[in-house]
Amino acid sequence: MLLSEMSKEQLLQFKNEVQAEYDEFKAQGLKLNMARGKPSGEQLDLTSGMLTIVKDGEDCIDDDGTDCRNYGGIDGIPSAKKLFAPMLGVTSDEIIVCGNSSLNIMYDTIAKFMMFGVNKESKPWKDCGKIKWLCPCPGYDRHFFITEKFGFELINIPMKNDGPDMDMIEKLVAEDESVKGVWCVPMYSNPTGVTYSDEVVKRFANLKAKAEDFRIFWDNAYCVHHLSDDHDKLLNILDECKKAGCPDRVLMFASTSKITFAGAGVAVIAGSADNMNYIRSLMEAQTIGYDKINQIRHTKFFGSFEGLEEHMKKHQKLLAPKFDVVQEVLEKEIAPLGIASWTKPNGGYFISFDAMEGCAKRIVELCKEAGVVLTGAGATFPYGKDPKDTNIRIAPSFPPVEEMRLAAKLFAIAVKLASAEKMLSE
Amino acid sequence: MLLSEMSKEQLLQFKNEVQAEYDEFKAQGLKLNMARGKPSGEQLDLTSGMLTIVKDGEDCIDDDGTDCRNYGGIDGIPSAKKLFAPMLGVTSDEIIVCGNSSLNIMYDTIAKFMMFGVNKESKPWKDCGKIKWLCPCPGYDRHFFITEKFGFELINIPMKNDGPDMDMIEKLVAEDESVKGVWCVPMYSNPTGVTYSDEVVKRFANLKAKAEDFRIFWDNAYCVHHLSDDHDKLLNILDECKKAGCPDRVLMFASTSKITFAGAGVAVIAGSADNMNYIRSLMEAQTIGYDKINQIRHTKFFGSFEGLEEHMKKHQKLLAPKFDVVQEVLEKEIAPLGIASWTKPNGGYFISFDAMEGCAKRIVELCKEAGVVLTGAGATFPYGKDPKDTNIRIAPSFPPVEEMRLAAKLFAIAVKLASAEKMLSE
Repeated sequence: MLLSEMSKEQLLQFKNEVQAEYDEFKAQGLKLNMARGKPSGEQLDLTSGMLTIVKDGEDCIDDDGTDCRNYGGIDGIPSAKKLFAPMLGVTSDEIIVCGNSSLNIMYDTIAKFMMFGVNKESKPWKDCGKIKWLCPCPGYDRHFFITEKFGFELINIPMKNDGPDMDMIEKLVAEDESVKGVWCVPMYSNPTGVTYSDEVVKRFANLKAKAEDFRIFWDNAYCVHHLSDDHDKLLNILDECKKAGCPDRVLMFASTSKITFAGAGVAVIAGSADNMNYIRSLMEAQTIGYDKINQIRHTKFFGSFEGLEEHMKKHQKLLAPKFDVVQEVLEKEIAPLGIASWTKPNGGYFISFDAMEGCAKRIVELCKEAGVVLTGAGATFPYGKDPKDTNIRIAPSFPPVEEMRLAAKLFAIAVKLASAEKMLSE
Repeated sequence: MLLSEMSKEQLLQFKNEVQAEYDEFKAQGLKLNMARGKPSGEQLDLTSGMLTIVKDGEDCIDDDGTDCRNYGGIDGIPSAKKLFAPMLGVTSDEIIVCGNSSLNIMYDTIAKFMMFGVNKESKPWKDCGKIKWLCPCPGYDRHFFITEKFGFELINIPMKNDGPDMDMIEKLVAEDESVKGVWCVPMYSNPTGVTYSDEVVKRFANLKAKAEDFRIFWDNAYCVHHLSDDHDKLLNILDECKKAGCPDRVLMFASTSKITFAGAGVAVIAGSADNMNYIRSLMEAQTIGYDKINQIRHTKFFGSFEGLEEHMKKHQKLLAPKFDVVQEVLEKEIAPLGIASWTKPNGGYFISFDAMEGCAKRIVELCKEAGVVLTGAGATFPYGKDPKDTNIRIAPSFPPVEEMRLAAKLFAIAVKLASAEKMLSE
């Protein structure tokens, strides 16, 4: 029965039953953390062989003779460029292989554009007055935090089933010169799991931007992170930008944090050769080079991009059952009540859950009190403020399947309880 | 016989003899690179055991239970803090263990001060108008390049035998609010090999600065890189700053690039707990964390700071003979002619050579034509401009001893030839 069709009496009874279930759960003293999209221990074990694959000095010599143990080579070793270029659909001169964190490279790139502009000819953003930044949301809290930290005004862009609201983006970008950029997680988006449609990608590439230095930050964090064999496909935005005559508009990012080791993998930035030359010229003041030994560990472990894709199937096998458990519980416990909606992604690390308006904070609070930590409600919106207080990011990757089932059950109970409370208070 | 005491005829004859020696060398087709302070292959082999010391997931668990393969822990794992804190003479809450490059952390720190100021209360440097930066020279080209890139005005400060000219620094810092900082390599300075005297360190700590946000960038890159058992000692500047009532004035940096692997080691930043808290708060927007697996490789390999110090004796054994060869050749070939002076460091990676005025570029050119690449003349001064064209940085670490002897001989011949040319042209 839909909650909305219940009489007040029925609702009260429903609430009392759910409260009892909740109290029972609470008494179990669970301790689960689903706050971040962390790989599980089993996933990390998949890459154990990489730890010792580079054994001595000889193993540190790359294809071109580079000794990865010594200084030199600012933009990544040739074998690593070769490995990762197909991941983003670029050539070796359109990619720079960096250190352990793509988030760090995104921050650095914005910091560089602030100080020095997006290319040699353009004005540093620090001298451009107020800067506005488009934030498709729900989205990734750490993206929003970077641009918040730099003092940009963050503009909420609603996410639809095929990507961000492009009508809104086209209008803002065309009319306002202070709009300098947009955050995108184009494949298995964080947290909605949406992959941008071909049309959305093309509309991004063909944006008429009032600001010549408008840039798309294309964080392709989940480009090989499928949850099913019949997986999503994403159009290559760099190709589309080239066709549209604006090859420099997009900067692409990815990392192996959720392929090998979280925080001890390899990150890349990719884009037009001109963009890479400019970024490289700025990097030359910043560092002598990134950790090349870790780069060659990756190239030796995977052998090729095909090897990396094969490896991702092992992650899929571990992750898919956890997502299935969440779907199963929500389908059974929540769907009949008509009090929420959620996504069923084909990849990535998250399920995006939309509760009744004004319930998300309460649900997260109820879960926390019973021992299950979720990402804070609001985190998926700029400034941590979800205007309708509905969205919750579920991160099923870390706990074992059976713990995930328990956590999902508790979550469902919390959703029911918060919804009943809300309806009774109205 | 001193060159200055030769008649024109004698000089001509000297020049012809040296020219013949030079031509003979040139015919050998040498190919040596002494441009950068790179560790040799033998030095890198000393750390081979570190490559495989972390074998599996269990080895990745640090003292506090942190799984170094997963996200979390922005400021370094506890065991790494414990390992490196004594290296800079600080406590665990006065150090942050970072990624693979201390230069990167210095750049980042300046970038952060530009964007956000040196603490929560202060004005971002980008809003402070012209910024001036003190550059003891000869010094490290990559330091100068960072501050040049940010558009600071670089001010040459002469290096003396006990550190920079403190009279000049005291005057500039006291009088000019736009002077915001100074580069220091306080121990076995790059390239002079000078270790700052206790008096110099104390004068730094007790500077009366007109700018409240004046900061000392203390790059202690060679703090454990001794070339003799009876080694230099450096006073702890953080202690002195605390005594002087300005604990936040100094930021200290170091890395293991010349202890383990160049560009694949671990870097640290250290300073007052307040400074570290502030830096950490800014890092939180920049990254989820640094590569903790590489940190735990280091702590497992060395065990303790004493273990690291023991390890450095192996480097000393490999490096000292190369420095000795250069000293031997210069002593024999150049000293009797009275045409140059050079340093005899107790540690570090360089010998600083001062030729006759106006000769450095010519010497580097002559060496290059005969197959020995040196650091470009001028590189040791801001903007790459050595006002007297005298200074050359000799980097003996990379070539094997016998090649180093050859290179030193060629260098000596080039010095003689350039000096004779110069004297004959006057």
